[in-house]
Amino acid sequence: MSETQTFAPVAGGICAPQGFAAAGVHCGIRHNHEKPDLALIKADVRCAGAACYTTNKVYGAPITVDREHLADGYAQAILVNSGNANTCAPGGLELARATCELTAQALGIPAADVLPSSTGVIGQPMSLEPFAAGIPAAAARLSATAAGSSAAATAIMTTDTHPKEYAVEFTLGGKTCRLGAIAKGSGMIHPNMATMLLFLTTDAAVPPAVLQAALSAVVPATFNQISVDGDTSTNDTVILLASGLAGNAPLAENTPDYDTFVAALTAVAEHMCRELAGDGEGATKLLECTVTGAPDLPTARAVSRSVIHSTLFKAAMFGADANWGRVLCAIGYTPGDFDISRTAVRLKSKAGEVFVCENAALHPYSEEEAAKVLAEPEIEILIDLGSGTAAAKAWGCDLTYEYVKINGDYRT
Amino acid sequence: MSETQTFAPVAGGICAPQGFAAAGVHCGIRHNHEKPDLALIKADVRCAGAACYTTNKVYGAPITVDREHLADGYAQAILVNSGNANTCAPGGLELARATCELTAQALGIPAADVLPSSTGVIGQPMSLEPFAAGIPAAAARLSATAAGSSAAATAIMTTDTHPKEYAVEFTLGGKTCRLGAIAKGSGMIHPNMATMLLFLTTDAAVPPAVLQAALSAVVPATFNQISVDGDTSTNDTVILLASGLAGNAPLAENTPDYDTFVAALTAVAEHMCRELAGDGEGATKLLECTVTGAPDLPTARAVSRSVIHSTLFKAAMFGADANWGRVLCAIGYTPGDFDISRTAVRLKSKAGEVFVCENAALHPYSEEEAAKVLAEPEIEILIDLGSGTAAAKAWGCDLTYEYVKINGDYRT
Repeated sequence: MSETQTFAPVAGGICAPQGFAAAGVHCGIRHNHEKPDLALIKADVRCAGAACYTTNKVYGAPITVDREHLADGYAQAILVNSGNANTCAPGGLELARATCELTAQALGIPAADVLPSSTGVIGQPMSLEPFAAGIPAAAARLSATAAGSSAAATAIMTTDTHPKEYAVEFTLGGKTCRLGAIAKGSGMIHPNMATMLLFLTTDAAVPPAVLQAALSAVVPATFNQISVDGDTSTNDTVILLASGLAGNAPLAENTPDYDTFVAALTAVAEHMCRELAGDGEGATKLLECTVTGAPDLPTARAVSRSVIHSTLFKAAMFGADANWGRVLCAIGYTPGDFDISRTAVRLKSKAGEVFVCENAALHPYSEEEAAKVLAEPEIEILIDLGSGTAAAKAWGCDLTYEYVKINGDYRT
Repeated sequence: MSETQTFAPVAGGICAPQGFAAAGVHCGIRHNHEKPDLALIKADVRCAGAACYTTNKVYGAPITVDREHLADGYAQAILVNSGNANTCAPGGLELARATCELTAQALGIPAADVLPSSTGVIGQPMSLEPFAAGIPAAAARLSATAAGSSAAATAIMTTDTHPKEYAVEFTLGGKTCRLGAIAKGSGMIHPNMATMLLFLTTDAAVPPAVLQAALSAVVPATFNQISVDGDTSTNDTVILLASGLAGNAPLAENTPDYDTFVAALTAVAEHMCRELAGDGEGATKLLECTVTGAPDLPTARAVSRSVIHSTLFKAAMFGADANWGRVLCAIGYTPGDFDISRTAVRLKSKAGEVFVCENAALHPYSEEEAAKVLAEPEIEILIDLGSGTAAAKAWGCDLTYEYVKINGDYRT
């Protein structure tokens, strides 16, 4: 499962780039005192900012505030709570604004430079009280170390089984730059930013419009190609802040340096896609579907998403059953007009590769071999439509008893 | 859960209308000898025929043959096997044609009047041998009684837990007419004819074009509004045969009698939708979502399908958790441009009704009351968008451990 272009990973997550500190604390939004529920990310300087949000017509109050606060292209802090989505809840917008005010006071920056974000249950009123104590506590613990990033990554988790952090290093105009990320995912992950919170930091100097262009280019090929359960959440948010402290000349579009930045962003995004999909609720297997030979990019993306999203196929993967008919079936119900008659399907993992379908029909294979391949925790589904040159990837996970258990009684 | 218009149910399933006999036998497509795998339906006379098929670009060989054989608008027999879908399998088309020839010989009718249908595993070669013995055996057992219908209903089952039959009586031009049905469903059921086989018989006299118009009017509002797991199968087929033996004047569109026929067809279809959704793989609850107050019919249908199809909501129903936020979330990600701000949601069952969401926000309710309502096996989700007069229904089921178990190892 290789990335399009490889970059050297570095430690430190969102604190790997210069000029960022982070913290995570328990402030009482969650009743469970063992689980931190408030994360704070602060930049030393005002940063260029870019974001992508859920396409759900129902969306969290924080997203409205983010849109307002990023309208000028700049921000300096991100405040994230887990435990309550602040969506469809009375007084949600006022509360989101009040949390920005509290953050501004604690950090000595304008409230308009604070970006709030929430994840958790929908429709439950949220109290400002936990924030009143929690924000100063988080501000007091801000750390520009790897520990700071990890604390923040832990605080934004809901049903994730482990915190998700990553960072890479690259060079722009001779200057060493870094790009780091933390994320929370698990259930409700599906194309168009389903409950996924992703916060990216970089010390590259990138003007707001260029930063947004880069993010908007990368999101459709990466985060929108994840599906855990097909539900598009109300609160999904990707925010990218650029401090500029690496000292490179401000990036312009259509330059080699811009391409390098987009490649680094893609590498971090793909890494996080695998992390998020592999840690889907109850998942035991990461599924990566690569479609090649498609007539066009939308078809390549849609076909890979269809396969990753098929509950029948996901259940078959849980059972390590090489049921390629379900792959073909999912390809077949993908919207759009394209030819399926030259479709080839291969299943691959560390244990080997089996060629299961050729020209949309059975390609004889050893069930024993297939069982060995599918016993691995990371499975690649390689589909060649044989009808063009467009390609795309999508990420998902198997459907398990545990998913049903987690979601059958989430609120209690 | 009342139908739009009620009709007197009668016994006998597809053999309730005059002029139809049916049978079910075990012929060896399935290795399990306890489970019949071949059904035969024969009419005494050549019937007007109408059909709707899967929209999957991958579809079974029998569907190709059905299209050819129904091109003239008439047919006299339906041959259905379970255990193998005859899809993406080498020589499938030749095999489907050969089964029609065998049926024609056994029944003394033209092969072009036989409609084949298959359900089961995709991509596995199927042998003609079981059919060579099975078709004459089924022909010898044809019965115009309720037992004949039941035997056929049993033979078409895959993971269904019980056979599905229904019939109603109505009057056209003073003549008593009947409409009967058998169906198989369970997994893979989703809008656009996901693995659902449905065979309807009537003794009403209805010319082919009028019959197709009636079926095409009813399918979008009924069978295409079912979702068990979102997978659209390769073999879904609805076939309706009209013997004309009731002796009514041939039906014409835009007449009161046509409306009566469509209403009867709708009543049978809605009954079967509930049967199919309630018996979804591993299901413990039938979910019926009714959307009212929609700006238009496509929105009403799409919103009801979104809710029924949300795995998060389905898992919540399994856990009897009144997680109305997931209903709102699913409404919100329904494609299309419509206002959600006046949305009201109620959950209802035999045990009562709870009003959980008003104007897209929490409407205070008793969790105790909600738990009582959701403990029932049939749950209605009532959504009023408050934005118009269009309405639609959709049917589904909860998502359970058992679904994962059934589909994790279907082939073994």
